[in-house]
Amino acid sequence: MMRQAGRYLPDYRVLRDKYDFFTRVQTPELATAITLQPVDQIGVDAAILFSDILVVLQAMGLEVQLIENKGPILPNPVRTLADMNRVYVPDADESLGYVFDAIRLTKQELNNRVPLIGFAGAPWTLLCYMVEGKGSKTFDTVKAFCFTQPDLAHRLLQMLTDTTIAYLKQQVKAGVDVVQLFDSWGGLLSPDDFETFSLFYMRQIIQALNKEVPTILFAKGAWSSIPEMAATGSTALGLDWCIRPETARKMAGPGVTLQGNFDPARLVSPISELKKEVSKMLNGFGPGRYIANLGHGILPNVPVDHAKAFVDIVKNHQYQTREKQVFSSL
Amino acid sequence: MMRQAGRYLPDYRVLRDKYDFFTRVQTPELATAITLQPVDQIGVDAAILFSDILVVLQAMGLEVQLIENKGPILPNPVRTLADMNRVYVPDADESLGYVFDAIRLTKQELNNRVPLIGFAGAPWTLLCYMVEGKGSKTFDTVKAFCFTQPDLAHRLLQMLTDTTIAYLKQQVKAGVDVVQLFDSWGGLLSPDDFETFSLFYMRQIIQALNKEVPTILFAKGAWSSIPEMAATGSTALGLDWCIRPETARKMAGPGVTLQGNFDPARLVSPISELKKEVSKMLNGFGPGRYIANLGHGILPNVPVDHAKAFVDIVKNHQYQTREKQVFSSL
Repeated sequence: MMRQAGRYLPDYRVLRDKYDFFTRVQTPELATAITLQPVDQIGVDAAILFSDILVVLQAMGLEVQLIENKGPILPNPVRTLADMNRVYVPDADESLGYVFDAIRLTKQELNNRVPLIGFAGAPWTLLCYMVEGKGSKTFDTVKAFCFTQPDLAHRLLQMLTDTTIAYLKQQVKAGVDVVQLFDSWGGLLSPDDFETFSLFYMRQIIQALNKEVPTILFAKGAWSSIPEMAATGSTALGLDWCIRPETARKMAGPGVTLQGNFDPARLVSPISELKKEVSKMLNGFGPGRYIANLGHGILPNVPVDHAKAFVDIVKNHQYQTREKQVFSSL
Repeated sequence: MMRQAGRYLPDYRVLRDKYDFFTRVQTPELATAITLQPVDQIGVDAAILFSDILVVLQAMGLEVQLIENKGPILPNPVRTLADMNRVYVPDADESLGYVFDAIRLTKQELNNRVPLIGFAGAPWTLLCYMVEGKGSKTFDTVKAFCFTQPDLAHRLLQMLTDTTIAYLKQQVKAGVDVVQLFDSWGGLLSPDDFETFSLFYMRQIIQALNKEVPTILFAKGAWSSIPEMAATGSTALGLDWCIRPETARKMAGPGVTLQGNFDPARLVSPISELKKEVSKMLNGFGPGRYIANLGHGILPNVPVDHAKAFVDIVKNHQYQTREKQVFSSL
């Protein structure tokens, strides 16, 4: 489950109250302990490294503050050519070494119980924070930046891409079994602008990584470009909850694994209803080439037993006979 | 253009600095003056009544505060059965009379130059504000309310529906030529939940109105349900900018008019590029059964001459010969 090591877990909240966000992220022992919590307590069958997409911006020379329940703040956003002089492509091993240490320690602690998923933010999503300086509903400032200063935007996007490729390759070297690339804000762009300002760069990252490990590409809201995302060669595509499984499969074609797409807000439903809704999703995707997951990060208001119920329902699901027949005839 | 009477217009800002939001909305002379500004200054070929979707919540007994640049606040949101006792289906003529006065005055001032579009918020979007009490990125509180107390949610949604039908019928009686129903937050729901909590109610409203005037149904982000929205019998469907014109037409079928779908953030592009992008959109939709518009409300950062350029490009567009042939052969 995306953001499975998070605020809905009481043990996570204990560490959150004791250490600030970047201390948790930058201390390998803490990051490892948090990464393992949902494996031990919820029974998920993959670990997701506890980290944050914005560590890449810190490594590139920018100050990032993360205020609990408030979202990120960059006190000095990048909006002009002069601002760009503060930004550089870092030596990942030097500036993000704590991430690779956390990966090594987590792999050791996991002892092959389940695989470990690493991740990075997509260049477009990182540019959103870099230019806007904070979260936003519509990210008008970064869009105006791209539409009025496209040359600067593309230079920054390429720097973000180069940094991310090096960062993810080091994650693989440290031991992650899969990498996921998150484009949280790809869905704010029109299909043509998504190609220009986001997918053009994500494609470079996927193609640099997918010979080494399986990759998962997830651009929330960018449903219109599912065929183009499938064509990047990514092993899997993440899906939000606003698309029917059958539509997603039709758009993506048969060759790519699909991941998703349960509405995280739906986890508060009574467990009997949860069972009905999750089963409907599983039957919609059918067996094979599918990773059951939420359509976005788990929310803080989810009761732990509901998160556990989600995992159990998935693990115990029996596909209907008729569907088994359909699939075995393919 | 959606929200065409807005902050990007200097004359609007003059009135905004002088009168607070609800004074502007509730004083027919002010609402009329603001409604006419883009007709006179930008050259749009329809007027859109200056008002707000939240006036319906005020009429139903709730306090709504609107703080400039901040969004709406409802100090006493509705979350329990006890809260529901504060909410009622009002006599629209009594509590929303200022809207109908503004419509009559605007029609008089327009003197048939251009038609007048009235509007209302969709029941689901109004429920979002009613329960959440403020804007939100994900509206988790109202979703949790619907998923854990569906009976209360459906009772409120039906009250909102009944109120909206009466409200829009009175708008028609007062003189609006078209009505638009806005579901700003329909795209936060999965396709099945969109049917249950939103479209089920919008369908009632469209079917109560579409014998009297043309209707435009716009559920931002709810692309997956375009076929079902077309089947409501609405005269037109609004589209956001995250869908290609050809895809929208294919999903909607040939019988419904489509409206949209230029990315409002794109209006800051240099005018030469604006011309290229707007022409691409117009050619994508082709001539006939199409209303050129933005994919959402115009943004405050848009230069007035860019807004005017958008209108001029649309008005002066020449369809390419090849496309003319394709369409005339249909």
